Amino acid sequence: MTEERVRLRDLGIAIGRFEPGRYNAITDVKGVLVGHSTIIEGQGKLRRGKGPIRTGVTAIHPSNGDVFSERVVSGGFVLNGAGEMTGRTQVMEWGLMETPILLTNTLSVGSCSQGLVKYMVERYPGIGVEQDVLLPVVGECDDSWLNDIAGRHVKAEHVYEALKMARSGPVEEGNVGGGTGMMTCDFSGGIGTSSRRLPSRHGAYTIGVLVMSNFGRMRDLRVDGLPIGRYLASEFESYSKRKQSYGSIIAVLATDAPLLSLQINRLCKRVALGIGRVGSHAAHGSGEIIIGLSTANTIPNKSRKRTHQLTILNDQHINPLYEAAIEATEEAILNALCTAHDMTGVNNHLAPALPVDKMVKMWNGFHKGTRF
Amino acid sequence: MTEERVRLRDLGIAIGRFEPGRYNAITDVKGVLVGHSTIIEGQGKLRRGKGPIRTGVTAIHPSNGDVFSERVVSGGFVLNGAGEMTGRTQVMEWGLMETPILLTNTLSVGSCSQGLVKYMVERYPGIGVEQDVLLPVVGECDDSWLNDIAGRHVKAEHVYEALKMARSGPVEEGNVGGGTGMMTCDFSGGIGTSSRRLPSRHGAYTIGVLVMSNFGRMRDLRVDGLPIGRYLASEFESYSKRKQSYGSIIAVLATDAPLLSLQINRLCKRVALGIGRVGSHAAHGSGEIIIGLSTANTIPNKSRKRTHQLTILNDQHINPLYEAAIEATEEAILNALCTAHDMTGVNNHLAPALPVDKMVKMWNGFHKGTRF
Amino acid sequence: MTEERVRLRDLGIAIGRFEPGRYNAITDVKGVLVGHSTIIEGQGKLRRGKGPIRTGVTAIHPSNGDVFSERVVSGGFVLNGAGEMTGRTQVMEWGLMETPILLTNTLSVGSCSQGLVKYMVERYPGIGVEQDVLLPVVGECDDSWLNDIAGRHVKAEHVYEALKMARSGPVEEGNVGGGTGMMTCDFSGGIGTSSRRLPSRHGAYTIGVLVMSNFGRMRDLRVDGLPIGRYLASEFESYSKRKQSYGSIIAVLATDAPLLSLQINRLCKRVALGIGRVGSHAAHGSGEIIIGLSTANTIPNKSRKRTHQLTILNDQHINPLYEAAIEATEEAILNALCTAHDMTGVNNHLAPALPVDKMVKMWNGFHKGTRF
Amino acid sequence: MTEERVRLRDLGIAIGRFEPGRYNAITDVKGVLVGHSTIIEGQGKLRRGKGPIRTGVTAIHPSNGDVFSERVVSGGFVLNGAGEMTGRTQVMEWGLMETPILLTNTLSVGSCSQGLVKYMVERYPGIGVEQDVLLPVVGECDDSWLNDIAGRHVKAEHVYEALKMARSGPVEEGNVGGGTGMMTCDFSGGIGTSSRRLPSRHGAYTIGVLVMSNFGRMRDLRVDGLPIGRYLASEFESYSKRKQSYGSIIAVLATDAPLLSLQINRLCKRVALGIGRVGSHAAHGSGEIIIGLSTANTIPNKSRKRTHQLTILNDQHINPLYEAAIEATEEAILNALCTAHDMTGVNNHLAPALPVDKMVKMWNGFHKGTRF
Repeated sequence: MTEERVRLRDLGIAIGRFEPGRYNAITDVKGVLVGHSTIIEGQGKLRRGKGPIRTGVTAIHPSNGDVFSERVVSGGFVLNGAGEMTGRTQVMEWGLMETPILLTNTLSVGSCSQGLVKYMVERYPGIGVEQDVLLPVVGECDDSWLNDIAGRHVKAEHVYEALKMARSGPVEEGNVGGGTGMMTCDFSGGIGTSSRRLPSRHGAYTIGVLVMSNFGRMRDLRVDGLPIGRYLASEFESYSKRKQSYGSIIAVLATDAPLLSLQINRLCKRVALGIGRVGSHAAHGSGEIIIGLSTANTIPNKSRKRTHQLTILNDQHINPLYEAAIEATEEAILNALCTAHDMTGVNNHLAPALPVDKMVKMWNGFHKGTRF
Repeated sequence: MTEERVRLRDLGIAIGRFEPGRYNAITDVKGVLVGHSTIIEGQGKLRRGKGPIRTGVTAIHPSNGDVFSERVVSGGFVLNGAGEMTGRTQVMEWGLMETPILLTNTLSVGSCSQGLVKYMVERYPGIGVEQDVLLPVVGECDDSWLNDIAGRHVKAEHVYEALKMARSGPVEEGNVGGGTGMMTCDFSGGIGTSSRRLPSRHGAYTIGVLVMSNFGRMRDLRVDGLPIGRYLASEFESYSKRKQSYGSIIAVLATDAPLLSLQINRLCKRVALGIGRVGSHAAHGSGEIIIGLSTANTIPNKSRKRTHQLTILNDQHINPLYEAAIEATEEAILNALCTAHDMTGVNNHLAPALPVDKMVKMWNGFHKGTRF
Repeated sequence: MTEERVRLRDLGIAIGRFEPGRYNAITDVKGVLVGHSTIIEGQGKLRRGKGPIRTGVTAIHPSNGDVFSERVVSGGFVLNGAGEMTGRTQVMEWGLMETPILLTNTLSVGSCSQGLVKYMVERYPGIGVEQDVLLPVVGECDDSWLNDIAGRHVKAEHVYEALKMARSGPVEEGNVGGGTGMMTCDFSGGIGTSSRRLPSRHGAYTIGVLVMSNFGRMRDLRVDGLPIGRYLASEFESYSKRKQSYGSIIAVLATDAPLLSLQINRLCKRVALGIGRVGSHAAHGSGEIIIGLSTANTIPNKSRKRTHQLTILNDQHINPLYEAAIEATEEAILNALCTAHDMTGVNNHLAPALPVDKMVKMWNGFHKGTRF
Repeated sequence: MTEERVRLRDLGIAIGRFEPGRYNAITDVKGVLVGHSTIIEGQGKLRRGKGPIRTGVTAIHPSNGDVFSERVVSGGFVLNGAGEMTGRTQVMEWGLMETPILLTNTLSVGSCSQGLVKYMVERYPGIGVEQDVLLPVVGECDDSWLNDIAGRHVKAEHVYEALKMARSGPVEEGNVGGGTGMMTCDFSGGIGTSSRRLPSRHGAYTIGVLVMSNFGRMRDLRVDGLPIGRYLASEFESYSKRKQSYGSIIAVLATDAPLLSLQINRLCKRVALGIGRVGSHAAHGSGEIIIGLSTANTIPNKSRKRTHQLTILNDQHINPLYEAAIEATEEAILNALCTAHDMTGVNNHLAPALPVDKMVKMWNGFHKGTRF
């Protein structure tokens, strides 16, 4: 884990036609904070309950950490539902989100949910008394190729750490937080993020995507469309790989564009198209779940007014957001791949880092080839 | 809690035109087991973390307790999604259920999920190693009117107890398990169940419904259509009642009819109609979530065969099942009401028992009135 | 057809706790117009293409007849999808409606669609040139028990007539327009409508429902919950009845409450609960489709502004609308039954009128029985 | 229209890792027939009702033309619902298809629906008498850039022609049938098809896709991922193009794999990923609607048996079908582009043919570039 890893754009490869925001991260959307708690312990043979441990928690806070009071308009889309995102039923019914979002491994969803309830009840003592109860939003992928998942090593303290570490600005990527033990297209890499800022003729809106990416096979990997994975697959043929049932991706989209929940649902479908462009066929056993939110119109938890005044984007102007969502999704996944290191875990399983120099060479070669 | 409480049918009131199964319970569907863990402690003023406690866990086991190995065809419907049923995303995607179903209070969903993971990992040590991970199915309602919900008193031991107590035969109803602190139409009453066995000309199928019922206002209560609640509401006018945002119902449907997941989804919509007939308008803050399963065709977890042979009901014959689902739902809710006792909880809030003698008198009076 | 028929409320029976609007009709929602074209010709034996004909078209115009320019926020719900409502895909995607709604028989959907396109293209010559194309909203039920449905007797001229006759004020009900040859619970009766005006403490909103009702069996009919149908069924035992596969209902909901499409979708689910309360179990072969619209916020077709300002109802205040939707739905269906006459059609099939005097007697008897 | 046009694969470019079926067409699925009726008349200035006409009808017949008697298991997915596919509500409710599928222009949906009803009623005289009625499946895209769409030139005779011309074997592509006046990524091209036959280790199933493609902008066009459109866009900068609101694609998937409707729904989602890979961002105004069917298990219309025996693919084996669906979709769209000619229509609007020689050069150049 000593080599320097950089993001896709630092390698000279940009996805799409729009510019990223300041940090090229979901945190470019004002009020969105991200924090990680990473747990890496032990190595060698799997001893359930002991390790090795390669997992953690990632927390996304809308509303500057106070989304319970300032609920955000929200929506989502399920590309393939072989996964879990608790709280989604209410998000889709109300079109609102009222808790932070946590990302973790499959068998720690309940632990994160309990940790979040504990945190929220301490912070908002009215919950369950004079205030309504809450339903945590927790998404997961399966990191059992590298992590002692059945050991259930994520505890409330890790939830607290991720929530408390959450901040604006640059976001740590790769093998961190919930994505610590995760893999994309047979390479190492869990957490990635990217953003786009639309030009002012399109409203100057910012849209950001953060993924916990854990899907795919090497041969399907595409970088801005280029079928890089086909060329790399032969090189890594001798590596042992996860069996086919693995693989999932959770994507979180945030924007300051003033969208209704119906519009966010539609935007989240475009995130799914972005996932597809990187090489996913949304395998049967893959949980490909997208959740989205707009920070532009908040609905105060305590509001008892009969009506709200909302500013809503005219659908006629939504297409650039669709394109930006696809671009940011592709780049977020590729950022997870570019920033992750070689990761060895359970039973010495190895998740190799993406060989970025080869990727760059192919990229340049491809484009040189078009000059005729 | 000393008075004798009996089920609706024992009061001489039957819902619908089909006969119930042997126990008039979801357990009439072969292989379905039900168990409760009930926690009743303390009284008087709410002291968070101390009590009073009026809550618990109810477990429904399909496949004689081994649903992880013998997965059942499954589906569901959300009438109003202001609630939670974890695992539903995968159930809807695959049309299969592979864990027991747990019912509890809103803020203990995570605890039950963790408890179930612990239980399953102990029982199936291959989970997360050579076998796939699992996603628990946990439903909830809000019992905070009577229970110290924020004290999070449900622990893994209660999950274990409910799972281990699960059996066939008669099902305890009223203030038990997950429904201990719950209320229906301002009366006491959480868990209820009922079943129907279709006559042989309709296939002799059994269909059972179990509800954790926590919805509604007194004035809306209907018993087999009769607007009983309007007459009772004036009598109970002076009682303090829960505020409007409360209220939910989780319904679990099981049948031995050989149904596809699409057909189960449709059947679960009819459960929603049954909920409506008892008086629900599916209030904004109510989580009215239905999940269903058929035990007729199981899909072994380990099967690697390319194809399965399934026997499937011809849709032309499904209507009697629709009617039976509505009937069993109405009667399950009314059984919860008839069997529950006066329950005093947090801050001496009182959930009164349904005055069944008055209900019976009105019932008789109503029907006498049609003889002219 | 000589006897005088009156609406439910004129018989002394009111559904629910809220008051109707001025006309107790969907037209109480400002800007909503209704028109019918009724085709009744011939009698006796079915001769395909000749008759007997018992059918027609009903048109509902939002936006005072100019919904193409002033699009209304819209949504819907499918209780059972064995039916058709064209245009629904776009309504659900955009949350907007941009054409009038037509109701007719199953095999005339295409003819109505063509008639509406012709009408719209004449009225808005820019369609398909500098303006976008349009997708007609046409719903249907099967009237083949009384009507030569395969004769396809609905023509563009009937569409024009219904559209041009559309107005505000009282709405003709029973055997008119699209509902001419339709039946409810084995009685005659297709078109019915009702409305509710919420008291000012709930916002003084008006909500109206119009149904083309063609579902159900006599034994299931409930009037404000009372199982009237069970008592009538024996009396009409000797009548020949439609076979089980028949039956559908299309419901159109309109309101001036400022709702989002997501909220309208949810409101339409409560219409389904109202249908259930009258006795529907949403039979397999029944198309039970609901579409809804709010006139409070219109989205001009020509608007190119980046954002709109919308006033939106706070969900905390939506429950009275849910109740009103259920009430108006029940009463609309019962109005169809109360106002329809005996109708004889194809092969002398007879759809008898509901015996309202018996219904009233039972109603009174029932309620007398509660005084004890 | 004189130059020779060939399919993608004849240019040396193959999509994906699986082999196509015999004709590389949806007709490789046994029992699936395709027919076109093409209407090309007039040129020059638009005179509504006169022309120019560039439209038609494409018919897809499952079950060797007798799908009404031998209904096929069916499902679908809406990527973006700004379009129409009538009959879809019932297809999704029942998981069955019982009529041929017609594809045409937006304002001729009603005409096709009427034509199909007429055809079916003549062929099955029991419809609407002793047999149930039917709901036609008709999909559309907007061809008004080239066609006098408001002139409504598609008549019942064209529906009959397409239905009667339907056969197995090679399928005519490009500017034919419903796709006559349609465009893809600003190039000419409407109808395209492709198929895959899985190797026997994956079950030897055949899967075919037929598209009526009318979406996209030139700069977004990707050929097997390669961003060809970016390079072509500058060359065609001076061409006048359709405004952004245009664009849709209807895809029909057929397979002989034994799938349930739920599995077909999921497969249709992967078709959406294939559409995305060619460059669609599923624009706001685009109707991107997919319908699918399996010919492996038919449900006879007349069957009154209580149960059916179905052979169903084990989900564990479904991933190769997912990949094949994506591959066939990409290639079907590209076949539409490769086979279409320059098409001039309304007001001399020109849809240029894709310059395939340039595409091939870039393809070769790209791949040469990876050799380093």
